[in-house]
Amino acid sequence: MERHEFGYFTEKNSVEAVTGRNKNATNPRLKEVMEVITRKLHEAVKEIEPTQDEWFQAIQFLTATGHKCDDWRQEFILLSDVLGVSMLVDAVNSRRPSGASENTVLGPFHVGNAPEYEMGHNICLDEKGEDLVVRGKITDIDGNPLEGVKIDVWQANDEGFYDVQQKGLQPDFNLRGVFKTGPDGSYWFKAVKPKFYPIPNDGPVGGLLNRLGRHPYRPAHLHYIVSKDGFEQLTTHIFDPHDKYINSDSVFGVKESLLADFRKIETPEEIAKIGFEGPHYWDVQYDFVLAPKKD
Amino acid sequence: MERHEFGYFTEKNSVEAVTGRNKNATNPRLKEVMEVITRKLHEAVKEIEPTQDEWFQAIQFLTATGHKCDDWRQEFILLSDVLGVSMLVDAVNSRRPSGASENTVLGPFHVGNAPEYEMGHNICLDEKGEDLVVRGKITDIDGNPLEGVKIDVWQANDEGFYDVQQKGLQPDFNLRGVFKTGPDGSYWFKAVKPKFYPIPNDGPVGGLLNRLGRHPYRPAHLHYIVSKDGFEQLTTHIFDPHDKYINSDSVFGVKESLLADFRKIETPEEIAKIGFEGPHYWDVQYDFVLAPKKD
Repeated sequence: MERHEFGYFTEKNSVEAVTGRNKNATNPRLKEVMEVITRKLHEAVKEIEPTQDEWFQAIQFLTATGHKCDDWRQEFILLSDVLGVSMLVDAVNSRRPSGASENTVLGPFHVGNAPEYEMGHNICLDEKGEDLVVRGKITDIDGNPLEGVKIDVWQANDEGFYDVQQKGLQPDFNLRGVFKTGPDGSYWFKAVKPKFYPIPNDGPVGGLLNRLGRHPYRPAHLHYIVSKDGFEQLTTHIFDPHDKYINSDSVFGVKESLLADFRKIETPEEIAKIGFEGPHYWDVQYDFVLAPKKD
Repeated sequence: MERHEFGYFTEKNSVEAVTGRNKNATNPRLKEVMEVITRKLHEAVKEIEPTQDEWFQAIQFLTATGHKCDDWRQEFILLSDVLGVSMLVDAVNSRRPSGASENTVLGPFHVGNAPEYEMGHNICLDEKGEDLVVRGKITDIDGNPLEGVKIDVWQANDEGFYDVQQKGLQPDFNLRGVFKTGPDGSYWFKAVKPKFYPIPNDGPVGGLLNRLGRHPYRPAHLHYIVSKDGFEQLTTHIFDPHDKYINSDSVFGVKESLLADFRKIETPEEIAKIGFEGPHYWDVQYDFVLAPKKD
């Protein structure tokens, strides 16, 4: 008969009674992780003191969340997003030296094989929305321009959907492109002014947001993955600071340093020079600073 | 533009940034519960510092757990069970005055409509295993015998399965019965000596137990729900203290006070008197003390 070190399970010894069983775990990291998860779960139960009915509501919520997941929908990632867990995991993995650009969440809509374009290309293939020029410079933390940096950008269209959410309705690779910097470290491309949009909110997570009195919207943004050998990969957004949801992003992705200045250009000379039709376009400049690779 | 009180999300203000959004929650209890859950989740992330890959493994585990759930299988309850959460929820809901019998987990195999029998009935309908007599007395905390107490009992068969796990293979309502006490508060019935059995371990929770070096077995037990108007309902087990898994129940259901004394009876006179065939049977006596209803 196996002996137990901590006695039978009680309210008082509950954590040790459970984690004490993991002595023979094959993976020491899993053992460590489960020790923390068990402890925090028990602390939560002891503080909340859920009724049996409340506990069962939690079981049903998790079950419905699992049932909503399929090849095209990841409801547990949404749950992680709206509880700030995704941003927190990003934060603990993206501590950078002062001066380097900040990360934010990747989101679920990146695709790996977007076409590579020359600088200045217009990635907006559906001709909807207000014209936009995006430009900036990429340097190291000492301000030296970086050549050969890969800039992978993507964004939702004027109606708030990514191409992969509307296969067949939007042109393939609409509002996606990869660019490479030259010796001066600068980049520029044409796109469309982004708009706010809701995260998918027809599932259990949408229901939770609703009962918490929260809206499902993300403020207007463009996504970037900026990468070069020898530097930490930068996965981030730039945001329109005038968006009505800028202070209440449903997934908490906004950071002060990621607010960009969207300027409205209305002079006919500038419109003609950039090759848009007018009557206006938007211009946003945002520079990135890459941190050196750790170890 | 909605203002935010706590500034944009940072590692430091992460909890307030998220819970601060719940000001307009419709249900104050949900708001309170989500405040604790968010705080404990963030504490766990800050302590674990998961890599992005580890975070995604957690997402995949929860997704697989959800996908394993259907009308006949509740993998999230199993997860709650093996992490001691179910027992802890039971504990915080079942604090009783000293001297009253202790609760333990309900488990997933209770059914609501078991047949009612006269005392002494044999609930073992499949004629497998070693004969058992179960008997005892039900009193209030002052020791007064209680009349009209409903005793709802169920157990797994000699092969470690409940009837509902083997529909068509076991007789319907095998090893289930409801009894009512008379004026002396005593009860007795015939059954089969229980055996240890594994919780369902072919899913994600079984995989987790395996990687944690834990077995899936529950020590031999009988289930009881003992109820009478004016008293707290008692949902409990009695356990065989000589079971090899008595100190390592996979769901932590064992309590010191629930260990019962299973005596082996081998005298032909006693065997004949009780009406068994022999060469032996088991006798277990266990008394219950009901606590008065709260409020």
